Amino acid sequence: MKGYGMISIGQAGWIEKPTPAIGALDAIVRPTIVAPCSSDTHALHGGIGVKENLILGHEAVGIIEAVGEGVKNFKAGDFVVVPCATPDWLAPGVQNFKSFSHDTGVMKSFKFLGSKDGTFAEYFHVNQADANLAKLTDGVSPEAALMTVDMMSTGFHAAELAEVKYGDTVVVIGIGPVGLMAVAASVLRGAGRVIGVGTRPICAKVAKEYGATDIISYKEGNIVEQVYRLTAGRGADCAIIAGGGGETLGQAVAMVRETGTVGSVNFFDYRDKIEINALYWGLGMSHKDIRCGFCPGGSERIRRMMEILKYGRFDAEKLITHKFNGFDELPAAFELMDKKAPDLIKPIVYLDK
Amino acid sequence: MKGYGMISIGQAGWIEKPTPAIGALDAIVRPTIVAPCSSDTHALHGGIGVKENLILGHEAVGIIEAVGEGVKNFKAGDFVVVPCATPDWLAPGVQNFKSFSHDTGVMKSFKFLGSKDGTFAEYFHVNQADANLAKLTDGVSPEAALMTVDMMSTGFHAAELAEVKYGDTVVVIGIGPVGLMAVAASVLRGAGRVIGVGTRPICAKVAKEYGATDIISYKEGNIVEQVYRLTAGRGADCAIIAGGGGETLGQAVAMVRETGTVGSVNFFDYRDKIEINALYWGLGMSHKDIRCGFCPGGSERIRRMMEILKYGRFDAEKLITHKFNGFDELPAAFELMDKKAPDLIKPIVYLDK
Amino acid sequence: MKGYGMISIGQAGWIEKPTPAIGALDAIVRPTIVAPCSSDTHALHGGIGVKENLILGHEAVGIIEAVGEGVKNFKAGDFVVVPCATPDWLAPGVQNFKSFSHDTGVMKSFKFLGSKDGTFAEYFHVNQADANLAKLTDGVSPEAALMTVDMMSTGFHAAELAEVKYGDTVVVIGIGPVGLMAVAASVLRGAGRVIGVGTRPICAKVAKEYGATDIISYKEGNIVEQVYRLTAGRGADCAIIAGGGGETLGQAVAMVRETGTVGSVNFFDYRDKIEINALYWGLGMSHKDIRCGFCPGGSERIRRMMEILKYGRFDAEKLITHKFNGFDELPAAFELMDKKAPDLIKPIVYLDK
Amino acid sequence: MKGYGMISIGQAGWIEKPTPAIGALDAIVRPTIVAPCSSDTHALHGGIGVKENLILGHEAVGIIEAVGEGVKNFKAGDFVVVPCATPDWLAPGVQNFKSFSHDTGVMKSFKFLGSKDGTFAEYFHVNQADANLAKLTDGVSPEAALMTVDMMSTGFHAAELAEVKYGDTVVVIGIGPVGLMAVAASVLRGAGRVIGVGTRPICAKVAKEYGATDIISYKEGNIVEQVYRLTAGRGADCAIIAGGGGETLGQAVAMVRETGTVGSVNFFDYRDKIEINALYWGLGMSHKDIRCGFCPGGSERIRRMMEILKYGRFDAEKLITHKFNGFDELPAAFELMDKKAPDLIKPIVYLDK
Repeated sequence: MKGYGMISIGQAGWIEKPTPAIGALDAIVRPTIVAPCSSDTHALHGGIGVKENLILGHEAVGIIEAVGEGVKNFKAGDFVVVPCATPDWLAPGVQNFKSFSHDTGVMKSFKFLGSKDGTFAEYFHVNQADANLAKLTDGVSPEAALMTVDMMSTGFHAAELAEVKYGDTVVVIGIGPVGLMAVAASVLRGAGRVIGVGTRPICAKVAKEYGATDIISYKEGNIVEQVYRLTAGRGADCAIIAGGGGETLGQAVAMVRETGTVGSVNFFDYRDKIEINALYWGLGMSHKDIRCGFCPGGSERIRRMMEILKYGRFDAEKLITHKFNGFDELPAAFELMDKKAPDLIKPIVYLDK
Repeated sequence: MKGYGMISIGQAGWIEKPTPAIGALDAIVRPTIVAPCSSDTHALHGGIGVKENLILGHEAVGIIEAVGEGVKNFKAGDFVVVPCATPDWLAPGVQNFKSFSHDTGVMKSFKFLGSKDGTFAEYFHVNQADANLAKLTDGVSPEAALMTVDMMSTGFHAAELAEVKYGDTVVVIGIGPVGLMAVAASVLRGAGRVIGVGTRPICAKVAKEYGATDIISYKEGNIVEQVYRLTAGRGADCAIIAGGGGETLGQAVAMVRETGTVGSVNFFDYRDKIEINALYWGLGMSHKDIRCGFCPGGSERIRRMMEILKYGRFDAEKLITHKFNGFDELPAAFELMDKKAPDLIKPIVYLDK
Repeated sequence: MKGYGMISIGQAGWIEKPTPAIGALDAIVRPTIVAPCSSDTHALHGGIGVKENLILGHEAVGIIEAVGEGVKNFKAGDFVVVPCATPDWLAPGVQNFKSFSHDTGVMKSFKFLGSKDGTFAEYFHVNQADANLAKLTDGVSPEAALMTVDMMSTGFHAAELAEVKYGDTVVVIGIGPVGLMAVAASVLRGAGRVIGVGTRPICAKVAKEYGATDIISYKEGNIVEQVYRLTAGRGADCAIIAGGGGETLGQAVAMVRETGTVGSVNFFDYRDKIEINALYWGLGMSHKDIRCGFCPGGSERIRRMMEILKYGRFDAEKLITHKFNGFDELPAAFELMDKKAPDLIKPIVYLDK
Repeated sequence: MKGYGMISIGQAGWIEKPTPAIGALDAIVRPTIVAPCSSDTHALHGGIGVKENLILGHEAVGIIEAVGEGVKNFKAGDFVVVPCATPDWLAPGVQNFKSFSHDTGVMKSFKFLGSKDGTFAEYFHVNQADANLAKLTDGVSPEAALMTVDMMSTGFHAAELAEVKYGDTVVVIGIGPVGLMAVAASVLRGAGRVIGVGTRPICAKVAKEYGATDIISYKEGNIVEQVYRLTAGRGADCAIIAGGGGETLGQAVAMVRETGTVGSVNFFDYRDKIEINALYWGLGMSHKDIRCGFCPGGSERIRRMMEILKYGRFDAEKLITHKFNGFDELPAAFELMDKKAPDLIKPIVYLDK
C-alpha cells in the first residue's frame, strides 16, 4: 500500500509499505478523512528524533477493513473515529487515576508516529480496537468528529489541567487549533473572561466566535504586562499554554494570581529553556499550581467529545479552513500545514474522493 | 421602619420595626430591588418552625445607608449586591475547604429568615460587610445581579455538587428558577445532553433556551424509566435535584449509571421520607455518589457569578417574568410566588419606584 | 480437577470440573494459599442469586501453571498475588477516572463468583493476566499478600471513599476484617480519633492495635448517640460502613457533622431498607456526602498495597487468626467463616501442604 | 515592653517597644514558650527586605493577657496555641477553596514578621482571635503544641500539596524540622517508601524514627540519580521540597515518574534560579504536577494537628533538641538556630521560667 510521510528528516514523500498486520485485538482501518497536524510537520523536521520511512498522520476517521478475532464491538465496514492516543490498556500505566496517557512510559500511548506508521495511508493499524475506537455519534458530522481525535480532546484537556472554575479569568497562550479548542473548553467550564494570545486574524476571529473576550499579541509588548493591564492588576485565575517556546511557562506563572493554575498541553522542544521567576511564583508560597499533560486516549473520551458536539455546545467545524480531495492532494495539505499559511487553521483531506 | 413578612405562621402582612442596629463590621442597606423566593413562602407556612413578626426576604440589591467603623471596602451610597448567605467569617465552620455555609452549624450562614429579619423592608442589616457584600460589576444590570444572590449561586452550586464533566448526560429534577440556573450551569460545565424534569410551559421554554435538550414530566409516567428510555438504557451521568419531595433522592440515585453523581440543593422537609433502593444503588457497590448542599456565601462567589454574566455566557434575566413597582406591590409579588402562578418563574419588586 | 463450592443454594461440597480453558491474554493459576470470605458464604446462602455447581473463593495467591500466548509479563512458575477484582481492561467502563470496578456494568469486574468459578480449586482462571496479576513484592510474606487481594484493598478504599483528612474523627461501623483494614487505612490517611463499632473481643483487640482509639457497640445502645456523646456533641468527620444492614447508612449520615463524608464498602442485601432521616441530613443542606464503592481491581492497586506492607506501615497478618492445611481442611475453614466463630477474624488455607 | 529581634539587617538585639494596641477582634498574648525558626534568621539577614526594629518570632504558645470587646470564644487567662499564619478572614482571598494563606495578597496571612512585630516579646498581638487562636487540646503538651504552629502544619501541608497516595514512594528533599514533619505526614497519608534527602545525623535519625526508609545525601552524588538507582529506574511518585535552593525544583521534577507530583513548601530566595529541564518534564507531556504553598492558617488547622498528636499518631516533640529557660537565653537559642548547629533540629525557649 502507499502512504505519505517522512523518508528521512526533512524529506517528505510517498512511501510504499505492506498493509499492516493485524493482531487478535486490533483493527485495520481505511481512512476516509485525515488531517495533518503540526506534530506531523514537527516530526518531519526531526522533532521526535531520527525516523526513516515513517508514514505520518495521527488524525483520521474511516472505515474498518478488518478486525482481529478477539474484537467484540466492531466489525469490518463500521465507520469509526480514531483517537490520536491509543493506550495499551493492559499496561500498568493506565491503572492510574490521573491519566491513561502513559501506558508503559511517558506518552507511550501515542502509537502513531511514536512507535508505528501513521494514518496518511491506504490503511492503518489500531491496537486494542474495542478500547480505542469510537463509533460516529448520530448527529455529528465526520468532519466534526475528525476534530475531536486530537484538537478538541487536547484543547479540552488543557482546560481540565488548568482547573477552570465558574467565573475565572482565563488566558489561552497560543490560538492555533488546540488553543482555539481550549477557548471553547474554558467557556464550557464556566470561565468569565477569556483572553486569547495570538496574532493571526483568522484565529482571532474564531477565538472570538468561541467566546474569547479579548485578544492580545506578543507584537504589542510583554504579554504578562498586558494581562495585568487588562485585569487592572488582578492577574488571571488560569493560564493555558497551547503553543510557544520554553518562555511561555514562566510567562504563564507570572500572569496568574495567587492560587491560580497553569495548564499546559504544549509540546516543548528538548532544547527549550523553561525557567520560573522565583518572585513571580511568590517565592514558592503562592499556591500557583503548574500542570502539564498529553491528550487523553481511548474511545470513551472521544464519545464524550462527540456528545458535546451532538448537542450543539459549539461548532468544531469552524477550525476547518481548507479542504482537499484525494491522496493526490495530501502533499499540498501537508505543505500548507508545514508553512502555517496566514489563513490556515486546520486543513482536512478527503481520501475517499 | 416598615417591613413585609410573617406576623405568624400563615399570616403575611406589614410589620413595623426599628431600623436595625449596626455593629462595627456591618452595613445597613436600603434595598432597591428585591425578589420573593419560595423559601420565603415556605417560611410563612411554617417550614422553618414557629416564627413571629419576622420580616421575610433574602434576595436584594440596594444602596448602603451606613457602615460600621470597622468596614474598609464599602461606604454609604455604594450600590451593592447582597448574597443570600452571609457567613460569620470568624467562626470555625468557614475554615473548611468544602463549604463556607456552616459557620457555626448547619446552614447557619443563612442569617436572613434564619436568625434575623430579611430584606423586604426599608432597611436591612448585613453582617461583616467587607466579606459579604459585592459591588455591582460593570456591564451587569441590577436585575441580573439580583438573580445571582440565590438562584444562580445555588443553581451553579448544584452543578458543582453533581460534578458535571465534559460530555455528561445530566438530568435536572425541577426546573423552577434554581433548576433553570442548574441547566445553564450544567451547560457551562461541559454537559452534553441535559434533560429537564418539569411541567410548566414557561419553565420548559426557558430551560430549552438555557440549553436543555429534552424535557420530561412526572405527568408522563415514572421519570426514572423515562430517563432510561431516552438514553437507550445507559442512564444519566449526573442528576441534580432542584425541587420535589423526599422521593426525588431515590429517583436520582436510580437514574444515574454506575460512577454517576447526584447533587442536591433541594430543601427537604423534615417530614420527607428519603429512601434509596438498595438494588438501584448497586447494593452499595456502584460508586454512585450522593452530595447535597446549601448556597455558598460571601462576596467572592457573587463576584464570580457576575463575571459569568458580564461576559455574556448566558442571560440570567430570562428568569424574571414579572416586575412590580414600589412597596405597595410587594404583597402582590409575594402572593404570586406563594401561589406559583403558571406563567411565573421569578417576580422582582422595584422598591425605589 | 476438584473444587469446593456451592452445589446449590445452601449446599456446600466438592465439585469436579475440567481445568479451565485459557485465552490468549489469560493465565491459569494453581493456588497455594486461599482465604474464605463472608462474600463466599453469602453466595452460598443465595445472596447473589441462584447459582449451581459454582466453585467458590476469590482470595488467593499461587503459582502460574500456564499463560496465554499474548501474555508478556508473566510465565509459568511465577508466584503471583491475585486481586479479587479483575477488570476487563478493554471495556469502556474502565475509561473512567472514578473507578475501574465497572468494566461492563455495576461490579462486573468481580469475575470470581460473579461470572465464573472461584479460587477454591486445583486451578483457577485469571483474565488479562498482564493487567490483573501482581508479582509478590520482596519483603512481603505470601500470607500478608493474601490479605491485600480483598480485605486490605477494600478497607483502604473505604477510607478513600470517606475522604479521611488530617485530624479527622472517623467512625468505622463493623470491625470484621474489612473494617479492621479500614481502621488501619484511616490512621494511614491521617485520622486523629478512630472509633470502631463492633462487639467481638478479638476484633476490638486488633482494632486497637491498628489504631482505633475507642470501641463502641450496638449492645450498649444507639451508636449515633454514643458517637455524639464521645465527641461532646461535635459528631464525626467521616463514617465508614464496613458491615451491617440497611440501617447503617442512616446511622452514618446522622453521626457525621456538617461537611462530613460517609464512605461505604458494605455489600447491602437487595432487601435492605436504606433510609436517610431528612433532619439528620440537614434537610439536604448539610454538605454531608455519601459515597459507596467496590474494591478497586487490577495489579497496580495490589502493588501499592504491598508497598505499604513492605515498609512496615502496619501488620496485615494480624487478621489471620486460623490456619488450615491442605484441601481436606478447606471445608472446615469455610464452615468456620460461615459461622463466624467468636475468636475468628480471618482463616487461611495452605493448599500446597 | 521588651522584645528580641532585628535592629537592622544583620544586627540582632533587644528592642524596647510599647505593648501592642488591641483592636475589637484581637487578643494580646503573653508567650510562655517560643521557638526560633530559620525564617526568623532569614529575616535577620535581609531575606524579607529592609526591616528595622522588628521584633522577630512567629512560633508561640502562651496565655491571653487581654481580648477585644468583639472576641467571643476566648478570655484573658486562656492558654492558647497561636498559628504562625493568622489570616484576615474578612478579606476576599480567604473565600477561596484552595488556601486561606493569601487574604489580601500573596502570603499576606503571615502577619508576624510580614506586617507587624513577632512573638519574641513580653506580649504580642493576634488579629481576629476567634478565628486565629486555638485552645490547647487535652492530652497534648504545650511543647508538642508549639511544634504544630508552623513546623507540623507546614510539613503536613507539603504532603497535601504532593498529593501522597497509598503506596506512593515519596522523596523529601531537606530533613530539617519541616522536612521531618513532611516525612511523618507522608507516612500518615499512606506512603510506602519514604526517602529523605539530608546530611545531618540527628535529622537522619529522627527521619527514620518518623518512618523514612532511606536517607540519601547530596554529598554522595546527584540526588536524582540516587533516587532512580534506589527505585530501580522507576522514579518516585511524589517529591516534597522542604529546603534547598532553586535547583531543587528541577531535581524534584526529574526524580518523579510520569503522573507524579511535586509539592513545595520551600521559601525560595528572590535570586534563586528555578529551571525545569524540558526533557525531564516529558517535554510538557508527562502529567507531572508542580505545586507550591505556604502554611495554612487559622485555628481549625491547629486543632486538627493537635488531634493527630493527641491520639499518638507520632511524637512531635522529637523535633525539640534544645531547651532554654527565660528571656535571657533567647539570644542563645536564636544564635543556635542561626548557625544551625550539627546536633540541632529545633530549640525552644520557656519564657515563663
